[in-house]
Amino acid sequence: MNDSQDLEARLRQIGARRYHNLHPFHRLLHTGRCTKGQVQAWALNRYYYQAMIPLKDASLIGRCEDQALRREWRKRLEDHDGNDDHPGGIERWLKLTDGLGLDRADVTSTRLLLPATRFAVQAYVHYVRERSLLEAVASCLTELFSPQIITERMRGMLAHYNYVTPEILSYFDKRPPQAARDATFALDWVKQHARTAEQQQAVVDTLIFKCDVLWSMMDALHYAYVTPGLIPPGAFVPRVSDG
Amino acid sequence: MNDSQDLEARLRQIGARRYHNLHPFHRLLHTGRCTKGQVQAWALNRYYYQAMIPLKDASLIGRCEDQALRREWRKRLEDHDGNDDHPGGIERWLKLTDGLGLDRADVTSTRLLLPATRFAVQAYVHYVRERSLLEAVASCLTELFSPQIITERMRGMLAHYNYVTPEILSYFDKRPPQAARDATFALDWVKQHARTAEQQQAVVDTLIFKCDVLWSMMDALHYAYVTPGLIPPGAFVPRVSDG
Repeated sequence: MNDSQDLEARLRQIGARRYHNLHPFHRLLHTGRCTKGQVQAWALNRYYYQAMIPLKDASLIGRCEDQALRREWRKRLEDHDGNDDHPGGIERWLKLTDGLGLDRADVTSTRLLLPATRFAVQAYVHYVRERSLLEAVASCLTELFSPQIITERMRGMLAHYNYVTPEILSYFDKRPPQAARDATFALDWVKQHARTAEQQQAVVDTLIFKCDVLWSMMDALHYAYVTPGLIPPGAFVPRVSDG
Repeated sequence: MNDSQDLEARLRQIGARRYHNLHPFHRLLHTGRCTKGQVQAWALNRYYYQAMIPLKDASLIGRCEDQALRREWRKRLEDHDGNDDHPGGIERWLKLTDGLGLDRADVTSTRLLLPATRFAVQAYVHYVRERSLLEAVASCLTELFSPQIITERMRGMLAHYNYVTPEILSYFDKRPPQAARDATFALDWVKQHARTAEQQQAVVDTLIFKCDVLWSMMDALHYAYVTPGLIPPGAFVPRVSDG
């Protein structure tokens, strides 16, 4: 195995052990064992992650002297922010929160977020701004594993929750091919640019960091809305009728 | 009531509702219901908060054009980092982690932290770096409430855990007068400089943010080490003999 194959194997191993598809909250969500209030809390918190993605991508472009990389990375801005003809990923995520009965102003103001969601997402944005370009690129590598979780999620949520329709899940329709394209590009780029052992270790550490971001968002949801179910002061409280 | 008295009343009300002395994990800790492993996890995670305090204070000094404020704020650096003759707060915190049987390299490397601890503390550091000077100063106002929790904690931990001695708690001996001095100064400064309704609201929002930082650190400890007791991948795992 050459060095860059070895790096890829190490990255895939991290995904197999630390990607948030393994988190118990996702198992509850995908197998129909969440109340509507818990599904709402997940969608409302995850909105903030979606909403901050273009900021972290623009920060990467804003410090990148390689035009080809800037041009490639710009696709991500369009995917999330949309254009005059097509809504982007953030807009499609709001179809989900609308469809779940959440008030749009509650969602977009982010005033009901779990603080841990905000801190985790901001840690991601700051990481992309402050670390090396190699680490900034590598931090998207969780997308290597996202097509699988998205497929699982769509199938599970459509099967188990009668208020979930294909229309409100339209975000997930579009994402797997985009994520696969982006992850392939980023993996190739990282394999090409991480030449020393230190650089390869930095890539590995970055993927661990990013898995920690996603995992800690799940921990916070699980703690606040499932077990022990202690909602921090000021965060979203489901209506009693939504459980 | 004048404006600045009104501001102080609003701040004290936030403390009464959102300060982390109200968190169930602290109740367990202070009433002797934590295992040694849980006490270790608390001390190890809280170390990171202590260790980052001088960085946030230096960041504040580093952007402050008011010499009197810089000079006042410099006391905090000395309190935490010490000088040739006296160890500072960080060193005294390590007496606690030593006394609890934790390996010093495990603690100072921060490699066993809960990711949520890291993200919350970094959110605090970034807040001080990026927000207005008024907000940066106001973010220490949780110290208004800390003498009380420290007294409660010392009394409770000494009474309930046979491995806790006054010597390993020496951090807490020194803190209440320092915190009271710092909080009084910061409160007066904020009352004097927050003149508009918007500025006063920014101070209130800052204290809420800071309470969220401390509260989310408690949530993460409680989730990982008490209920449901799911330790995130890579974080500190107590030895079986320590529970």
